[in-house]
Amino acid sequence: MMSTPRSYILTVSCPDGVGLVAAVSGLVASWGGWLTEVSNHSDRATNRFFMRNVVAADSLPFGLDEFKNGFLPLARRHQMEFAVRDSSVPKRVAILASREAHCLDDLLHRWRTGELRFDLRGVVSNHETSRAEVDRLGVAFHHVPVRSDAKEQAFETIGRFLEDEQVELVVLARYMQILPASLCQRFAGRIVNIHHGFLPSFAGSRPYQQAYDCGVKLIGATSHFVTADLDQGPIIEQDVIRVDHTDTVDDMVRLGRDVEKTVLARAVRYVLEDRVLVDGSKTVVFK
Amino acid sequence: MMSTPRSYILTVSCPDGVGLVAAVSGLVASWGGWLTEVSNHSDRATNRFFMRNVVAADSLPFGLDEFKNGFLPLARRHQMEFAVRDSSVPKRVAILASREAHCLDDLLHRWRTGELRFDLRGVVSNHETSRAEVDRLGVAFHHVPVRSDAKEQAFETIGRFLEDEQVELVVLARYMQILPASLCQRFAGRIVNIHHGFLPSFAGSRPYQQAYDCGVKLIGATSHFVTADLDQGPIIEQDVIRVDHTDTVDDMVRLGRDVEKTVLARAVRYVLEDRVLVDGSKTVVFK
Amino acid sequence: MMSTPRSYILTVSCPDGVGLVAAVSGLVASWGGWLTEVSNHSDRATNRFFMRNVVAADSLPFGLDEFKNGFLPLARRHQMEFAVRDSSVPKRVAILASREAHCLDDLLHRWRTGELRFDLRGVVSNHETSRAEVDRLGVAFHHVPVRSDAKEQAFETIGRFLEDEQVELVVLARYMQILPASLCQRFAGRIVNIHHGFLPSFAGSRPYQQAYDCGVKLIGATSHFVTADLDQGPIIEQDVIRVDHTDTVDDMVRLGRDVEKTVLARAVRYVLEDRVLVDGSKTVVFK
Amino acid sequence: MMSTPRSYILTVSCPDGVGLVAAVSGLVASWGGWLTEVSNHSDRATNRFFMRNVVAADSLPFGLDEFKNGFLPLARRHQMEFAVRDSSVPKRVAILASREAHCLDDLLHRWRTGELRFDLRGVVSNHETSRAEVDRLGVAFHHVPVRSDAKEQAFETIGRFLEDEQVELVVLARYMQILPASLCQRFAGRIVNIHHGFLPSFAGSRPYQQAYDCGVKLIGATSHFVTADLDQGPIIEQDVIRVDHTDTVDDMVRLGRDVEKTVLARAVRYVLEDRVLVDGSKTVVFK
Repeated sequence: MMSTPRSYILTVSCPDGVGLVAAVSGLVASWGGWLTEVSNHSDRATNRFFMRNVVAADSLPFGLDEFKNGFLPLARRHQMEFAVRDSSVPKRVAILASREAHCLDDLLHRWRTGELRFDLRGVVSNHETSRAEVDRLGVAFHHVPVRSDAKEQAFETIGRFLEDEQVELVVLARYMQILPASLCQRFAGRIVNIHHGFLPSFAGSRPYQQAYDCGVKLIGATSHFVTADLDQGPIIEQDVIRVDHTDTVDDMVRLGRDVEKTVLARAVRYVLEDRVLVDGSKTVVFK
Repeated sequence: MMSTPRSYILTVSCPDGVGLVAAVSGLVASWGGWLTEVSNHSDRATNRFFMRNVVAADSLPFGLDEFKNGFLPLARRHQMEFAVRDSSVPKRVAILASREAHCLDDLLHRWRTGELRFDLRGVVSNHETSRAEVDRLGVAFHHVPVRSDAKEQAFETIGRFLEDEQVELVVLARYMQILPASLCQRFAGRIVNIHHGFLPSFAGSRPYQQAYDCGVKLIGATSHFVTADLDQGPIIEQDVIRVDHTDTVDDMVRLGRDVEKTVLARAVRYVLEDRVLVDGSKTVVFK
Repeated sequence: MMSTPRSYILTVSCPDGVGLVAAVSGLVASWGGWLTEVSNHSDRATNRFFMRNVVAADSLPFGLDEFKNGFLPLARRHQMEFAVRDSSVPKRVAILASREAHCLDDLLHRWRTGELRFDLRGVVSNHETSRAEVDRLGVAFHHVPVRSDAKEQAFETIGRFLEDEQVELVVLARYMQILPASLCQRFAGRIVNIHHGFLPSFAGSRPYQQAYDCGVKLIGATSHFVTADLDQGPIIEQDVIRVDHTDTVDDMVRLGRDVEKTVLARAVRYVLEDRVLVDGSKTVVFK
Repeated sequence: MMSTPRSYILTVSCPDGVGLVAAVSGLVASWGGWLTEVSNHSDRATNRFFMRNVVAADSLPFGLDEFKNGFLPLARRHQMEFAVRDSSVPKRVAILASREAHCLDDLLHRWRTGELRFDLRGVVSNHETSRAEVDRLGVAFHHVPVRSDAKEQAFETIGRFLEDEQVELVVLARYMQILPASLCQRFAGRIVNIHHGFLPSFAGSRPYQQAYDCGVKLIGATSHFVTADLDQGPIIEQDVIRVDHTDTVDDMVRLGRDVEKTVLARAVRYVLEDRVLVDGSKTVVFK
């Protein structure tokens, strides 16, 4: 991404129909725009159309706003939901973490080395444990304890922070608190979680203990959008690792960490690059 | 297995304790027996000990019966459940199948080419569709329809066949009927099923439709021992394959078949080679 | 594929440039054609553009020949190599096999059950071993022995058969003979092989022995287009399976068979569905 | 490992023969020792026997030295090479790194969080880039530049450091320098490297570029013991990840990092827990 030329990424979803690919690519071509990547998908069950287009920015005689304005008439005609983004402007991101820091540390490492490009507005945690690590990187660290008798206030504080910073993506990096439904709705499609189980198996708490008791031979992790239904949001990415009878719950926790980290990092990358479109209770991921 | 010398395979399970490995291997050594493979496992949760031993048959001055008799005093002392088997005597196997024949055909192919060695006593199906294929191989084919108003009789017929043939392993190769609890109990630890879902997700019927609706990114199959609790028996082997938003339910069914076949074949191999010991609701698999 | 409506599949490759996606999709749209799938790829190293388009056949007012004729002017302008195919007309296929029949049997099974749809023109083998199996399915079986002193004649016979039957895809299903360069060139891009090693490791003969001697922890299989350079043609698909120190060469051969079968079946499916485009020494596979 | 009781880990290799398992376990039993884990392997090609035993320390009436002395007569009789180690005494480890720090950082993270337990004697690098990170953890950082005209001195410095610190395991965490043969021999069986290619494919430099040029569909990483033959030492662990035509060399580098980290971490864990025995040009890994 880094070394590629500046692009506009246009994502579209609308009722399926004839000529949608041609309509979109034809319009871009009429502007002299160079479509370097195009992907589409038609969901036959929901009869919905999805498309992701990458247009070389310097092939267009105008900027982002004019792109949007120029696209509006077509969008209206086909009842398209659409978004255009400048690939050179990194997304504004907040990470919510808790005591277990492997996912947070992994994301920070990928961010620091430039592997994942985003504008990190801050880290929120209900524990102080990661403060030193976050401080050291020059990133704002917000300790927001979540006491059982004052949850509402805590999430009001967090909600305000996310709004103030105009956060476009919230990453729950093993944040062990359940977000209130209101927050989930306010940031619908913008909160990504990593669940340490192979959903829909092992939803809820202590998934590794559940997996151990169940005697499964593979354990996994699931990254999904957060909705008001706990552990039920649209799945973005999953992966598994083999275990056997010699592995204790502690071994599973350890092995699982490596899967959690890579699954979350992949899901975050897909979202940062506008590769993920929500299709009802599922996702379309243009890889 | 085929080209290796004849062996006795001794499997043991008992309450855990000091000196069990030494007691077993010492007894075998006192007979002049050559232990070519030994594997053990202690389950700290259930405090149970499991062991699998392979002894070169020609290193012993006696046969299977004397082995068993010679082992009895030690077994009694440590409350061991044990079994000894001659690796050169293939297990007596029956396969139960239905209309979808990919798992049956796959097992027949592995059996015919000698990849899996067992004494195939017959194939039972509630459909006639595989008769020609089975006949051609010189294997007995038993058509036992399972009509909703005569299930009891059907399973009585099947039970009698399994007893008459002294079947040691029953393989449900996508047999779409639910076995009655009585049959499950009579052949406890001797019936292996392949479920076309990644258990405990997607138990019950139409697992691929469930997986599709759920938007998972990996689908899988599970081979397990059959108990009276549907799709709940101890898991022997599992595997998964990646899917994405372009895959329909039909694609999942097709992709899943390859996983079902290999997972079932692996589980059957482990059981044929006495590598699987049941540990409560789980299995110990010595690979 | 089977239940989907009839489509035209248009594949294109040409020097990369501005407006290619729009030019192609716009032309199809100008005919009223409904593009249900579109995939493209630009190889920055070779500066080449690749595209695969699926057009609903009943959205066009004309047939395959007019499609081709209508596309020619655009193709000339952009120096496009292109092909259009009617998805309802199965490709003409020949399978070449040898003594080890697991890949042949697997393909026949997928063909017989309709999982893979193609027009099987015949099976050629240098051994008689599979005749009964092939006969039984009503498929022509051609025994063409390849004696070391009469190779040229053997391959002339085979070449004539392929031409007579207008074969569009030749599958080497563990065919253990090296094809002469002339045959490779005559059917360039139309011969698919399965190599039982993870190429480029273990090219040549006895790859499992090589893998064993090397002590690798994963073994694999590779499906690739056949060129005059042995085991060097563009790779279509690969996969691996885990092994460990307990696995003998025979175990690797057995485990490898399952990988060979699925890798070859996947590659054949991709080619049958026109998903594979050759890009120099590599492939573009639109999944 | 951490929460398990203190154990002695006894590893043995010797010419294969009758009664070896019984001889070892019987001797331990004669001391009242409790064998909690036992694994063995006979390599039929080399006719060599390998064994790993875990004995509960508090079941023995004496300590490590007496264990060794008590074992000597048996070892002599069977020409055994053996080692006994106290599981509660972490191994002395040095990490050699270079500019690319993902493997170093990953190991440091696992070490800091207690996931991998070892006594980290210092980090050596030919660049200053990781100094701050290493310092912060209170670990000694040694900058040893490797100038092309002064390689000998550089490796003398490193060799002296390793000896002074009595290092038992040297981890090359993407250390991009070739160790001199003398150093490889001095620390034979104690240096573990991570190669960013799926060996034996892509030995030497720029493996991802090689993989890209070759058009492979899976890329991998290999952890192996270092010998004087570059990238040829016994393989401990390997893994792969899927790539396709859209992945550039840079993408492969990025994807490969996740595989390198996990493969190296697994190999280091196996070595730390004495699970790896060298068998000629291969390894036995008791998992």
